[in-house]
Amino acid sequence: MQEYITRATLGRLPIYLQYVRSIDSDTISATKIAGALNLGEVQVRKDLGAVCGNGRPKVGYERTTLIKDLENALGVYECTEAIIIGAGKLGLALLGYRGFEEYGLKVRAAFDIAADKTADVGGERFIKPMDECKEYCKVNNIRIAILTVPASAAQQACDDLVSCGITAILNFAPCKLKTREGITVRQENLALSLAHLNLMTVNSTIQEEEQ
Amino acid sequence: MQEYITRATLGRLPIYLQYVRSIDSDTISATKIAGALNLGEVQVRKDLGAVCGNGRPKVGYERTTLIKDLENALGVYECTEAIIIGAGKLGLALLGYRGFEEYGLKVRAAFDIAADKTADVGGERFIKPMDECKEYCKVNNIRIAILTVPASAAQQACDDLVSCGITAILNFAPCKLKTREGITVRQENLALSLAHLNLMTVNSTIQEEEQ
Repeated sequence: MQEYITRATLGRLPIYLQYVRSIDSDTISATKIAGALNLGEVQVRKDLGAVCGNGRPKVGYERTTLIKDLENALGVYECTEAIIIGAGKLGLALLGYRGFEEYGLKVRAAFDIAADKTADVGGERFIKPMDECKEYCKVNNIRIAILTVPASAAQQACDDLVSCGITAILNFAPCKLKTREGITVRQENLALSLAHLNLMTVNSTIQEEEQ
Repeated sequence: MQEYITRATLGRLPIYLQYVRSIDSDTISATKIAGALNLGEVQVRKDLGAVCGNGRPKVGYERTTLIKDLENALGVYECTEAIIIGAGKLGLALLGYRGFEEYGLKVRAAFDIAADKTADVGGERFIKPMDECKEYCKVNNIRIAILTVPASAAQQACDDLVSCGITAILNFAPCKLKTREGITVRQENLALSLAHLNLMTVNSTIQEEEQ
């Protein structure tokens, strides 16, 4: 079984994959990867260790095996589909977002309670009425949803999703969701990222002034 | 000087503030706060310690001081303004997002190179042409920007922002930005959150099957 992969490690896997695919040699060392990607060697060893164990001493990793292990970790071959609930501005922004494939994810459909939003938005992506959600999840074996409804509608939408067989929810609504055991909720908070960036900037200014 | 506040701590500050504002008593202990908010006592002590030091033994925190310290940490009184660069779907979603105020942040303007996007989008929020950005930053003393342009335009936009006096950038474009020292860039990756959620779900399934 794979070791636990942290979010930070996962974020670097596409970078490793792109680089290792691009090289010519049959083997490559963590040292060389670290140098080429301007990363710390300890970090590279830890990241790759979580995905495909240690390289061979003095040789490093076999290129083809490393590529395969990285692809497996990223789920490139078994593309997982996620759905969006709430076709507002943020929902539509995510429906049009092109960065999911890199992580073996696809997003093709957003569902909305407003039936008049139903549309083909191009690029084989669709807005569908909410009452088609359950059937869509069943047919396409969907278990991940991105929640972009207003806070006031989020708990109800969450309960509906669980009844559709969804087991993992990425929640952009600014409210805490109550779910039963076995359902994973990850709370996204766009304001928090900005607030923390602001705080870091202020703090670094203070530190500079004190020096 | 304030201790370093982690992103996780910062994320809980609005919850503490809301609760402490709502209570009647003049003092409150970390134990009581932890109980009311269903948080660990160690965590509450650590969070509040970073913001306003330790409470008095057997008494806890004075309510009014605690409120003031939390408000200060969240910057509620000195609202910082951030701008958005790129009035595409994601930029507009963020321009309409109502969660920033809670963290002492306001976002009123998005700038776009397409001059025909210029508009008043309601709620005292505006889309402005990019060539007005520098003047706007100067007049309003802006130093934080949210970058929601396509990856191909991100580095140029970043360089332009630095010349406008911006010192902190929250980058949603899926690419790494090169900046000079003194400029803080935080990379947001919406796909990564979803990918990690997926991975955690898969792993927990594997673990359940093995038990």
